[in-house]
Amino acid sequence: QGILERLDAGEIVIGDGGFVFALEKRGYVKAGPWTPEATVEHPEAVRQLHREFLRAGANVLQTFTFYASEDKLENRGNYVAEKISCQKVNEAACDIAREVANEGDALVAGGVSQTPSYLSCKDKTEVKAAFRQQLDVFMKKNVDFLIAEYFEHVEEAVWAVEVLKESGKPVAATMCIGPEGDMHGVSPGQCAVQLVKAGASIVGVNCHFDPETSLETVRLMKEGLQAAKLKAHLMSQPLAFHTPDCGKQGFIDLPEFPFDKTRVSFLVGGGGLEPRIVTRWDIQKYARKAYDLGIRFIGGCCGFEPYHIRAIAEELGPERGFLPEASEKHGSWGDNLSMHTKPWVRARARKEYWENLKPASGRPYCPSMSKPDGWGVTKGAKELMQQKEATTEQQLKELFQKKK
Amino acid sequence: QGILERLDAGEIVIGDGGFVFALEKRGYVKAGPWTPEATVEHPEAVRQLHREFLRAGANVLQTFTFYASEDKLENRGNYVAEKISCQKVNEAACDIAREVANEGDALVAGGVSQTPSYLSCKDKTEVKAAFRQQLDVFMKKNVDFLIAEYFEHVEEAVWAVEVLKESGKPVAATMCIGPEGDMHGVSPGQCAVQLVKAGASIVGVNCHFDPETSLETVRLMKEGLQAAKLKAHLMSQPLAFHTPDCGKQGFIDLPEFPFDKTRVSFLVGGGGLEPRIVTRWDIQKYARKAYDLGIRFIGGCCGFEPYHIRAIAEELGPERGFLPEASEKHGSWGDNLSMHTKPWVRARARKEYWENLKPASGRPYCPSMSKPDGWGVTKGAKELMQQKEATTEQQLKELFQKKK
Amino acid sequence: QGILERLDAGEIVIGDGGFVFALEKRGYVKAGPWTPEATVEHPEAVRQLHREFLRAGANVLQTFTFYASEDKLENRGNYVAEKISCQKVNEAACDIAREVANEGDALVAGGVSQTPSYLSCKDKTEVKAAFRQQLDVFMKKNVDFLIAEYFEHVEEAVWAVEVLKESGKPVAATMCIGPEGDMHGVSPGQCAVQLVKAGASIVGVNCHFDPETSLETVRLMKEGLQAAKLKAHLMSQPLAFHTPDCGKQGFIDLPEFPFDKTRVSFLVGGGGLEPRIVTRWDIQKYARKAYDLGIRFIGGCCGFEPYHIRAIAEELGPERGFLPEASEKHGSWGDNLSMHTKPWVRARARKEYWENLKPASGRPYCPSMSKPDGWGVTKGAKELMQQKEATTEQQLKELFQKKK
Amino acid sequence: QGILERLDAGEIVIGDGGFVFALEKRGYVKAGPWTPEATVEHPEAVRQLHREFLRAGANVLQTFTFYASEDKLENRGNYVAEKISCQKVNEAACDIAREVANEGDALVAGGVSQTPSYLSCKDKTEVKAAFRQQLDVFMKKNVDFLIAEYFEHVEEAVWAVEVLKESGKPVAATMCIGPEGDMHGVSPGQCAVQLVKAGASIVGVNCHFDPETSLETVRLMKEGLQAAKLKAHLMSQPLAFHTPDCGKQGFIDLPEFPFDKTRVSFLVGGGGLEPRIVTRWDIQKYARKAYDLGIRFIGGCCGFEPYHIRAIAEELGPERGFLPEASEKHGSWGDNLSMHTKPWVRARARKEYWENLKPASGRPYCPSMSKPDGWGVTKGAKELMQQKEATTEQQLKELFQKKK
Repeated sequence: QGILERLDAGEIVIGDGGFVFALEKRGYVKAGPWTPEATVEHPEAVRQLHREFLRAGANVLQTFTFYASEDKLENRGNYVAEKISCQKVNEAACDIAREVANEGDALVAGGVSQTPSYLSCKDKTEVKAAFRQQLDVFMKKNVDFLIAEYFEHVEEAVWAVEVLKESGKPVAATMCIGPEGDMHGVSPGQCAVQLVKAGASIVGVNCHFDPETSLETVRLMKEGLQAAKLKAHLMSQPLAFHTPDCGKQGFIDLPEFPFDKTRVSFLVGGGGLEPRIVTRWDIQKYARKAYDLGIRFIGGCCGFEPYHIRAIAEELGPERGFLPEASEKHGSWGDNLSMHTKPWVRARARKEYWENLKPASGRPYCPSMSKPDGWGVTKGAKELMQQKEATTEQQLKELFQKKK
Repeated sequence: QGILERLDAGEIVIGDGGFVFALEKRGYVKAGPWTPEATVEHPEAVRQLHREFLRAGANVLQTFTFYASEDKLENRGNYVAEKISCQKVNEAACDIAREVANEGDALVAGGVSQTPSYLSCKDKTEVKAAFRQQLDVFMKKNVDFLIAEYFEHVEEAVWAVEVLKESGKPVAATMCIGPEGDMHGVSPGQCAVQLVKAGASIVGVNCHFDPETSLETVRLMKEGLQAAKLKAHLMSQPLAFHTPDCGKQGFIDLPEFPFDKTRVSFLVGGGGLEPRIVTRWDIQKYARKAYDLGIRFIGGCCGFEPYHIRAIAEELGPERGFLPEASEKHGSWGDNLSMHTKPWVRARARKEYWENLKPASGRPYCPSMSKPDGWGVTKGAKELMQQKEATTEQQLKELFQKKK
Repeated sequence: QGILERLDAGEIVIGDGGFVFALEKRGYVKAGPWTPEATVEHPEAVRQLHREFLRAGANVLQTFTFYASEDKLENRGNYVAEKISCQKVNEAACDIAREVANEGDALVAGGVSQTPSYLSCKDKTEVKAAFRQQLDVFMKKNVDFLIAEYFEHVEEAVWAVEVLKESGKPVAATMCIGPEGDMHGVSPGQCAVQLVKAGASIVGVNCHFDPETSLETVRLMKEGLQAAKLKAHLMSQPLAFHTPDCGKQGFIDLPEFPFDKTRVSFLVGGGGLEPRIVTRWDIQKYARKAYDLGIRFIGGCCGFEPYHIRAIAEELGPERGFLPEASEKHGSWGDNLSMHTKPWVRARARKEYWENLKPASGRPYCPSMSKPDGWGVTKGAKELMQQKEATTEQQLKELFQKKK
Repeated sequence: QGILERLDAGEIVIGDGGFVFALEKRGYVKAGPWTPEATVEHPEAVRQLHREFLRAGANVLQTFTFYASEDKLENRGNYVAEKISCQKVNEAACDIAREVANEGDALVAGGVSQTPSYLSCKDKTEVKAAFRQQLDVFMKKNVDFLIAEYFEHVEEAVWAVEVLKESGKPVAATMCIGPEGDMHGVSPGQCAVQLVKAGASIVGVNCHFDPETSLETVRLMKEGLQAAKLKAHLMSQPLAFHTPDCGKQGFIDLPEFPFDKTRVSFLVGGGGLEPRIVTRWDIQKYARKAYDLGIRFIGGCCGFEPYHIRAIAEELGPERGFLPEASEKHGSWGDNLSMHTKPWVRARARKEYWENLKPASGRPYCPSMSKPDGWGVTKGAKELMQQKEATTEQQLKELFQKKK
C-alpha cells in the first residue's frame, strides 16, 4: 500500500531518524558539508543505519540524499576522497534504501532539500533543474513517493514540490521553520497553504527545532489549512535536541552550533549539543502529542537515533496494535523493575516515574539555556548602546568623584 | 606486534568504546540483562560497530562477550528468542572481532567480566569454572590477549586473572571502582597491587565513573604500585557520562539509573542519562590528561560512541604521528570555520573556544546534579530522624499556639 | 514641587522599595495577612526603612498602608496582638512617612490597594467606601498625592481612581499584571486607557513580575495609550525577583510561593524565593531600560531593598546630575578595583565585567526554572489524561507480553 | 547570667547575624573597607539592626566593631566623611549594643578581628597593641564577654586571645577557615587546640563558608580537642550563602566576589552573591545539625538577616521551651496553609514540603557552580600548558592537512 492509501485509511506512519548526525558520529559524514557520499564510499554503514530504523518501527525509509544536489556536491567536493558523481550518490542511496525496505514493511521515499543555487539567488529555472536531476534518479529507481524537506524559504519549497509533482507520485513537503515562519517572514499557516496549492499531499516541519516547538509549528500549519479550507496530511520530523532557547533560525544560532549563514552549512558536528539530547521518555510524550494533534506521519531528524524511533512505535503501540521488531530488546517504562525486592525500586516500574524524572546534567558549571548569537540586536544598534554606556559610565565616575 | 610489545615500546594503544549501550540504542541489546546474544542473532550489527571503532582509531577490539558467562546467560535466558548456548555466543564474538580486526591494524582481546556466581556467594572453584569456560573459546579462537573487566570486588578480579593467566597470554585487568575503592573497601592502590601480583600486566579501571573521576582512581592505583615497587602498564576505559555527583558505586546509584543490586544488572537503558553525555571536546581533555598521567592504553566504556574514540585518536595524533581513518570525515577543533566571512565566527576556529564552551542543557526545569539513592543513610536512621522531627514539629506548633 | 510638576518638567522620579517583604524579614510583618499594623506597633522599624529608601535616592515615600483597608485588617485581625483600628494604622503611616520625607527632598504618597470586598463580590458602593475611609485619613494628613496600586482587576482599580480623584490631588495607578493583562483578560493597553479615562495622571505596573517582564507590560500600556491618543506619565515598580517562568498571575503561582487565591494573600514569606533575588547590576539594567522606554517614575516592589533603589539612582545619576546620600558608601561598578595590583582583578573594575557576570546559585540540586502550579491544566482535564494513559499503559504491557 | 554559666548549664545561646553585609545593603557601610564608622555616623541604623536581631532571638549582641582596629580605620579612613577616632567608633558601638541588650535578655560581646598589621608582617607586640586598644574600650564600657573572630591565621588569633584574656572576662574565638585549615595549613583540630590552650573557653568558626561546610570544620575542631583531651564550648557563625564550590579561602575566591588578597578586603558588596542566599528552611536544617553536633553557641555571619536568626530560634524552640519575640509575626513551616480549601495546598502546610523544596533561580543563563579564581593552578604552570597546547594544535592541523 502506498503512503496516501495508508494515511487516508487513518494508519499511523512512522518516519525514520537523522542520518547526517548519526553517521557523523559513526565516522562516515563530515560535519559542515554534511553531504551523503557515504552511499558510495561506505554502503554497509548506510545500510546498517537504515536497518536499525526499520527494526525500530519506521514505515518509511528516506533515501540518504540530503544535500545530494549537484551544486551542493560540487561545492563541497573537496572533502570527498575521489570525485563521486551526483548521479552515483543518488542511485546508490535508492538501491540501499530499497534493499533494506524489502527486509520489512516499509516504503522508500526519495528526498530533496534546499540548494546552494537558491541561496546564491539563482533563478527558478536553474534551481528547478537541480531538483529535476535528482528526480530523474528517483524515477529510474522507482521510489514509492517523494519528500521535499529542509527548506527555510517557502518559495524554494514550492518550486521543489512543483518539480516533484511532475512525476505523478505523492509528494510530502516539510520546512525547517519554527512558529515565526520562514526566513522571509511567511507564517507557518501560509507556508502550508502554498505547499498544498503547489501539489503537496502531506505537509509539516523537520529539523531546526525541538519536538515541542515543532508541534506548535505544525499546529499553526493546520490552522492555516483549515482557514483556507484545504486538506492535507500532517507530518513532523523534529530535532532530538531540546531547544527552548532558540531564535527564529532554530538550533543553528546557538553558540554550541555555529553556522555559516551564506552557505547554509552548520560547520561543527553538533559539537556541544550533547546535553540537549532528548530521552526516550521525551519522545514518547512527543509521539502522543503529535498523535493527539492529528499528525499521522511521525518521525525525526538530526539527533534521532534508532531508539528514539522505537519510542514512537512503542508509545503508539496500542493504537497500531503491534510493536516493532526492536522492542524484543526493550521493556515498557522500566517494567522489569516490577519484580524488584525493594519497594522503592518497584515504585519506579511505571510510566509516571520516568515521565516526571528531571534528569541532571552532571555539569555544574554549565547553564540551562544559551543566548543565541545575534539575539535580534544588529551590530550598529549594539555599538550605539556601547558608546552611550561608555559616556554614562564616565559621567557616573565623575559624579562619584565629586561626591567624595 | 602484541599488546605488551606495543606498550613496552611506549606506543599509545587506543581501546574501543561501549558495546552494550551503543547496541541497546541501535536495538540489539536489552537493558537490564545486557547480554551479548546479538553476536549470534545479529552479527552484522556487531560487526558494523566494531568496524566503526576500528575506523575511529581503536587498536584493540574486545570480543563482545560482556556478561557472556554461562551463569549469566542462563539467568537472563528468557529475554532471548531461542536458547543460544554460551559457547556459540562467545565463538561468534571472537569470529566477528577477528574479521574486523583484519580490516586494519588491531588486536583482538577476549574479555570476561564479573559473574552472578560470585555475587550469590559461590565458591572460588565454581566462579573460576565460569571464567575457564569462556577462556576455552578464546584459546580455540586464538585471541591476541585477554581482559578481565568490570569487577566491583578485587577478590573476584584476582580469580579471573588467575584463570586467564593459565593461557600464557598477556592479561589486562580493570575494575569498575572509583577513588573510594572496591565494594569491600579495598583501596584502588591495593586493588592494583593484588591484580599485578595475580599476574596482570596491565591494570586500571573501566565503567561506573566519568573520565575525570576514573583518572583519579588510576592515579591512586599508580601510587599503590609505586609504593609496592611493582610495575605494570596503566589502562582506563571510563564512562562517557559526567558523574561528579556519584557515590561509591558510581552511576549505578543515580536516580536516572536504577539498579538491581542483587543481580548486578542495571535495568533501564540509561533512560535519563542523555544530558550527561560527554562531548568530543571533553574526550580530548580526557585523552590528554590520561596521557600526561602515564596511561598508555586509553579507551572507553558505556556511552563511548565511535566519535569519542576518534577524539582520543585525534588528541594524541601528534604523539602518534597519524590520524585515524575516520578523521577523513572530521575537522580539527572547528578548523573549517577559519575561512568564515564573519570575524566572530572565525574566532571560533580554535581549540580554546570549544574547550571552554559551557554547553547549555536546554532543560530549564532540570538540576545539574542528582542525589544518589542511599546517600549513606540507612533506612533505620532515616525513620528515627523522621520520628524525632515529627515530635519537634508538634512541639513547635504548640509553642506557636501558646505564643498567640 | 508636586509630583506632576516634576514629571511634566521631565524629571526622573525615583520610587521606594517593598515594605512588606523587607519588614517580614526584619520581623515586623506577618507573611500571609501582610498587613501594616507595624506603623502602630513598631513605628521605629517603619521609620528606619523609610529613611533607608530616602537615603538611597527615593523621591517618593509611600505611606505604609498596603492592605490597610478596614475589611482587610478585620479579616486578619487575629494576627495582631491587640485590636488596632484601621484609622490608627493609616494615620500613623502618614505621620511616619511625612517625618522622614522632611529629612530630605521627598513627596509623601498615600496608597490604597485591592480589597477583600471586591474579591468577595461586594458591590461598587461598598468597595468604594473602603477606599474612601483611607482617603479621609490621607486628606486629613495632607499627603502630596495618591497611588492606587496592586490591582489584579482593572474594574476595581478604576473604582479606586474614581474615589481618589474626589480629593483633587494627583493620582497614580498601577496594576500587578503582566503582558497577558488583568484577571478578566483586559489587555495592558486597555487597562491603561481605562485608568487614564478614570482620572489617573500616572499609570503603570507594580509587583507580581520581574523587571524585564514588567517593562514589557508598561510598553504595551504605552502603545495602548498612543493608539487611544491619550497622554499619561508612565511608572514601574516591579519585583526584585527573577520570574521568567511565571504564568499569568506572576510569582504567585510558583511552587516556591503558595497562594490563597480566594483571599489574595500569599501565605509564606517568599520562603523559597531567595535564589531569584536580582542583583544591583540587574537593577541598573532595569533602570536604563525603563528610562529608555520613557518611564519617569521608577521604583520597586516586593524584594526591593534600599541597595536596589540606590542602584536606580546611580544608573540615572548622569541624567539627574547627582547621586543619592547612600552613594557615599558605595562605589561605581567596582571602581575600587581599579588600583589593584593584579591585572586580572583590575580588569574587573568596569561595568562590562559586572554586567555580564552570570552569578552561580551554589545550588547544584536545584533547577533554574519552576513550572507554575495550575500550568493551564484544569483538574478535570488532568484526570481524563491520566485515565487515558493508564489504559494505554495497560495495553502496551499486554503488547510487550505478547511479543515475548 | 554570664555566657559561661549559660553554656555550662547546657543552654542554647543564639548569636546575631552579619552587620557589614546588612548595613551595606541598607546604605551605611562601604563594601571594600567594610569599616563600622556607622556607629558614630548613623547610630539609629545600627541600633535598629541590633534590635531586629534581639527580637529574632539573639542572646548575644556583638558590638559593631568589626575591622575597628586603629590600623584598619586609618587605612580606609578616606571613605569616611570626617575623621572619626578609633576610640569613638568602639565606644559608640558598645553604647548602642548595651542600650538594645537592655531591651531584652541579651549579653554584650566586645569583638576584635584580624588586623592589617599582622598581614603586613608587623611583630607580635604591635599586633597585640592594636587589640589592646580596643580591649581598653570594652573594659571601660564593661561588656559581658569578648569574641576574637574572623582570623585566617591561627597565630594572630592566639595573640588576640592572649590579649583578651588579660581582662579576666570569658573569651570566645572563631576562625574564618574551612575543613582545609588556616592559611598556613594548620588543621581545624590543631587551631582549636591552640586557641583553647591560649585561653579561649569557646571556639569555632565564622564567615567564609556556608553552614554545611562550617559545621564540618567545627566537627574537625571538636575531634582535635577530644584527641588532645581538652574541653571547650563550640560555636558557629557561618555565611548565609551556599558555597559548595569554594576553595580553601571560601567565598573570597569566587568570581562573584573579587578580593584584594594583600589587604584582606573584599571590594564589591557581595555584588553577585544574591542567588546563593540561603532560605529560612536551610537555616532550620543548619540549626538542627549544629545542635546535634553539640554546638551550643549558634549564630551567623555575612548574609544572615534577622529572619535567619529567627529561624534558628524557631527550630530550637522545643529545646529552649520558648519562641522569640519576632515569631509573633511568623508561622511555623507554613502552618497557615493547614486550613486551606484546596487539598494540594493543605498538603504544603508541613515541614517536609518546605524542607524538600528545590527552589529555582529564575536564571536560565546562569550555572549552578563557579570555578574559583586561582583554582590551584599557578600562572607559570598555566602558561606552560598553553604553550604545549599551541604546539599540539599546530601539529594536529598539519596532520589533518596531510590526511586530506
